Amino acid sequence: MTLADAVLEGNRLALARLLTQVENNTPEGRAAVNELFPHTGKAHLLGVTGSPGSGKSSLANQLARHYRQQDASLKVAIVAIDPSSPFTGGAILGDRVRMRDLAGDSSVFIRSMASRGSLGGLAATTAGAVQVLDAAGYGLIMIETVGAGQSEVEIARLAHTTLVVEAPGLGDDIQAIKAGILEIADILVVNKADLPGAELTERALLGMLQLAHPAPHVFYHHGFSKDEAIAIQEDGSDQLWLPPVQRCIATEGVGIDELIQAIQRHRDYLVNSGEWARRDRSRLQSELDLLLRETLLARWQERVPEARYRKAVQLVIQRQISPLQAIQNLIDGDSL
Amino acid sequence: MTLADAVLEGNRLALARLLTQVENNTPEGRAAVNELFPHTGKAHLLGVTGSPGSGKSSLANQLARHYRQQDASLKVAIVAIDPSSPFTGGAILGDRVRMRDLAGDSSVFIRSMASRGSLGGLAATTAGAVQVLDAAGYGLIMIETVGAGQSEVEIARLAHTTLVVEAPGLGDDIQAIKAGILEIADILVVNKADLPGAELTERALLGMLQLAHPAPHVFYHHGFSKDEAIAIQEDGSDQLWLPPVQRCIATEGVGIDELIQAIQRHRDYLVNSGEWARRDRSRLQSELDLLLRETLLARWQERVPEARYRKAVQLVIQRQISPLQAIQNLIDGDSL
Repeated sequence: MTLADAVLEGNRLALARLLTQVENNTPEGRAAVNELFPHTGKAHLLGVTGSPGSGKSSLANQLARHYRQQDASLKVAIVAIDPSSPFTGGAILGDRVRMRDLAGDSSVFIRSMASRGSLGGLAATTAGAVQVLDAAGYGLIMIETVGAGQSEVEIARLAHTTLVVEAPGLGDDIQAIKAGILEIADILVVNKADLPGAELTERALLGMLQLAHPAPHVFYHHGFSKDEAIAIQEDGSDQLWLPPVQRCIATEGVGIDELIQAIQRHRDYLVNSGEWARRDRSRLQSELDLLLRETLLARWQERVPEARYRKAVQLVIQRQISPLQAIQNLIDGDSL
Repeated sequence: MTLADAVLEGNRLALARLLTQVENNTPEGRAAVNELFPHTGKAHLLGVTGSPGSGKSSLANQLARHYRQQDASLKVAIVAIDPSSPFTGGAILGDRVRMRDLAGDSSVFIRSMASRGSLGGLAATTAGAVQVLDAAGYGLIMIETVGAGQSEVEIARLAHTTLVVEAPGLGDDIQAIKAGILEIADILVVNKADLPGAELTERALLGMLQLAHPAPHVFYHHGFSKDEAIAIQEDGSDQLWLPPVQRCIATEGVGIDELIQAIQRHRDYLVNSGEWARRDRSRLQSELDLLLRETLLARWQERVPEARYRKAVQLVIQRQISPLQAIQNLIDGDSL
């Protein structure tokens, strides 16, 4: 029996082993993903991102717990991504703490992945891990990212529904929410809503949302006229999604069921509007483009020593040769 | 005499011809950029971006006029980028209108560039055009982009100083400012400041700025402790840049001189903080990485028919083969 077959049969140990293979980008891992891919496409992929300190991990854990309470047949997975950490040590410790929290539920699977190599590499690896979990029958897969920078935006693109989590009163130490992340938010969560300043955080998010998502503009993108756009907006029909703001206190389980309802409404919107299929296509197309560039680059890097590349960069910064000349010399293998 | 030599001597016709070569990515154009590159690195590169309808073109024209009035020895160039238009027709018409506005000043050069092919291609072409103008002695080069999406963010990365231009009261037809653009704003401009709602626009921008640029966080990135960060912030020293908001009425020339002062302050900050050299290095490094990926992809596409790629995408969407398998088949030239 292959590793892929064991994963399809629901073997958790095989699943954990395969995810390690995928993370290390081994030939065995790649072969297994190829084998499993035709079984994918059923899971609801939920991105969870936001500022560090906003309580994303607690929120993901509580969502897993409540989903399981609501539907005993649903298998739930959490993939936690840390693009900033080159080591897996912290990630593994994190897993242990979380495992305790959700201990004993064999239908919940949690996996941390740390960054190795390029962002493109991490995005490709994450896509592979999600495909493995999807094939293994996990119907809800959360992709949780640590920060809210450009890298997280790339990874959140993997999801059908993206939650952006904020919290009030985090003080000076907290990175403010990166404005760019709001463009990809389907649902905004104000976590730790019992802290002072929750109202302020919610108002700030709503203000930014209004700038980021003027509703008629959404329709213009879909080819509606201005009058049609306004009519649809007033209808509040299936064709429109305006990101709601949901308050939660994840550690106490407050607001989690309401959040799950909002996620379900977003899923219905995606399916009814045809957006689910569109996001699926667009996600696979992006993954292909990314893999093509990364694979071409990786094969080139196998052939060319890194010292030659660094030397070329130096010559360009000193303005001895142009960027194009440097790349042509490198690709054509001329001596520099 | 080569085209590059003629450009170095200040021949405007040669400059226009060379920019066309660069835009069309001809072998002659590439050779000339290689020849000119050692003469670059002197210009102040000013990105001008923001919502359509915010009056960026008028603002760029007025900036050119006022810069020239303040310093008769300064040569000013405007490169206007339209990533959304595959045709140059509109761009050429735009040039004519602008030329009339700044007619007769031989120290101002305006060039529109429309998108041909990929975004990566346009960013690379724009970089080349800016290098040509830099070598030709244009001390201030504005890179004006049409919209404010991700593509414009990529192009704005080419600049030392980035202006993000907004205007009040544009109604439903206007794309709201993309939240992501604020991350790259060095100076915010509220244009058409005589229109109702200018105050509201300015307040919204300031609110978003506070979320996007909490000052201490800037210092943490530069390795300062929290206490040092607060001290520096209270000092208002050279090590800190908090993006100011400047109101203008470009069509009447109101606020333009104040905007030029803000741009000059930003230039001083860049030089004094060492950020100028850092942005230069980072810009060239990005250009190299981009050129490497684009060149590898271009050489691959020359060898592989597009129909084969499209067929591979289709097979993946139908989940017959995995993305990785599709790419491996394509790169290794196996039949699909």
